Amino acid sequence: MKWKRSERLVEMTRHLLENPHQLIPLTVFSERFQAAKSSISEDLTIIKETFEESGTGKLLTVSGAAGGVKYIPLMSDRAVREVIAQLIEELSHSDRLLPGGYLYMTDLLGNPQLMDKVGRVFASAFANHNIDVIMTVATKGIPIAQAIARHLNVPVVIVRRDSKVTEGSTVSINYVSGSTRRIQTMVLSKRSMKSGQRILVTDDFMKAGGTMLGMRHLVEEFDCELAGAAVLVESEHTEEVLVESYRSLVKLCKVNERDRTIELEDGNYFLEGGDER
Amino acid sequence: MKWKRSERLVEMTRHLLENPHQLIPLTVFSERFQAAKSSISEDLTIIKETFEESGTGKLLTVSGAAGGVKYIPLMSDRAVREVIAQLIEELSHSDRLLPGGYLYMTDLLGNPQLMDKVGRVFASAFANHNIDVIMTVATKGIPIAQAIARHLNVPVVIVRRDSKVTEGSTVSINYVSGSTRRIQTMVLSKRSMKSGQRILVTDDFMKAGGTMLGMRHLVEEFDCELAGAAVLVESEHTEEVLVESYRSLVKLCKVNERDRTIELEDGNYFLEGGDER
Repeated sequence: MKWKRSERLVEMTRHLLENPHQLIPLTVFSERFQAAKSSISEDLTIIKETFEESGTGKLLTVSGAAGGVKYIPLMSDRAVREVIAQLIEELSHSDRLLPGGYLYMTDLLGNPQLMDKVGRVFASAFANHNIDVIMTVATKGIPIAQAIARHLNVPVVIVRRDSKVTEGSTVSINYVSGSTRRIQTMVLSKRSMKSGQRILVTDDFMKAGGTMLGMRHLVEEFDCELAGAAVLVESEHTEEVLVESYRSLVKLCKVNERDRTIELEDGNYFLEGGDER
Repeated sequence: MKWKRSERLVEMTRHLLENPHQLIPLTVFSERFQAAKSSISEDLTIIKETFEESGTGKLLTVSGAAGGVKYIPLMSDRAVREVIAQLIEELSHSDRLLPGGYLYMTDLLGNPQLMDKVGRVFASAFANHNIDVIMTVATKGIPIAQAIARHLNVPVVIVRRDSKVTEGSTVSINYVSGSTRRIQTMVLSKRSMKSGQRILVTDDFMKAGGTMLGMRHLVEEFDCELAGAAVLVESEHTEEVLVESYRSLVKLCKVNERDRTIELEDGNYFLEGGDER
């Protein structure tokens, strides 16, 4: 079949969107579409400009024999602010208030379009950090981890609280929970990571950062490197945060159980200094 | 800004791919691109034909005042067979064998591109089943559930083994595990589902189907309807399967721990009779 330019544009757009952070040699397209490389280059220029115009991301062109094109999902600051505003709007409903000052967030974590946006926000923030693996703790961090992973095109590893036969040999650590000061355990399959990998840790909620600290210890136990921390909602707290550098989208400032009010503000995503952004 | 056809094609393709199963009025496109509806219709015809040619899915056009266009992700039988073959290839490596005849699958569940394909396979199979919610049990079913949910554009609800404060009020049931015959508990937040919804249950592994049966009881407890069951790997077993209708991609037939061999075959995905396909 001979493809027209209009058809090539549709199909190449799909292919690029489904394979982020992956170098695609131009020959893949020129062979598939039976088109000259010069035509493919022109197609890619159109896609590149449209992706930039619409804030979808960047197309990197790598020249030479091992060259090709790579799609990097990126989000404009304006689009990130829209996601943050949407989260704050959703989270501020008083019926989310749970006993103990917790917020019900399970429905947001189960919303695939919202999670896709959150994943894109963090994938955008960490696009240049050479992330090899996304790590999270079961259960609620998983949707966020998977969404980031899809846009960075790297695997997810899930830390558990208990050892399961289906994980094979595991590495286990103990750590002290930040807010309750209890000793807790984290378990991760030995096959999850290779030494030297760069790990992005993520979770849905962070108070004093004990869980994050536990994950950092696990990262070190595997001779890996902590490349960043991504948090959906951080909570105001009196103790010092146990991890020095993280990105959050929303900050839960105050909860009044009697009046049933919830005070939220933007997280530190756009703050300078706290991170290498 | 005035968009050229080529740019519109790129941007509309992206918009449709990111919003599956969602009716998009043509005015959304004609206003955004400052183009006549007739031009937008021509663009959509090109996208529709290209999506069909490449096996990406269908574009449904709904006419009338409340009309628009809807993208339905679909996978060709050939593409589904490729996913199944890839799964069998991956799973047959002897180093996946764990004590007790279990298989290590955690890396596959953490692979975002593979999960995206699996999600697309099941979203394709259940595209016409009016699914409202995807339900799974923590932890290992979550990546599959989320991948299906993204392609069907419906929420995920996660059943837990224990009640957590962050879930708010919960509904809890007891059921008997299929293979070990032990009494187990399942807990689901009361806010997860509304009565009358159609639920697709999914899990990574199924033996006698006890977990699936438990989820079915939960579905009934919420006055919802079981619309289907999607399983990544089912295992050969002597007992009768506790759910009458399910779709699996791979069947684990036999494991020999001494010789370290694993026998796998295609699941029942393409078999007639067992399902309404």
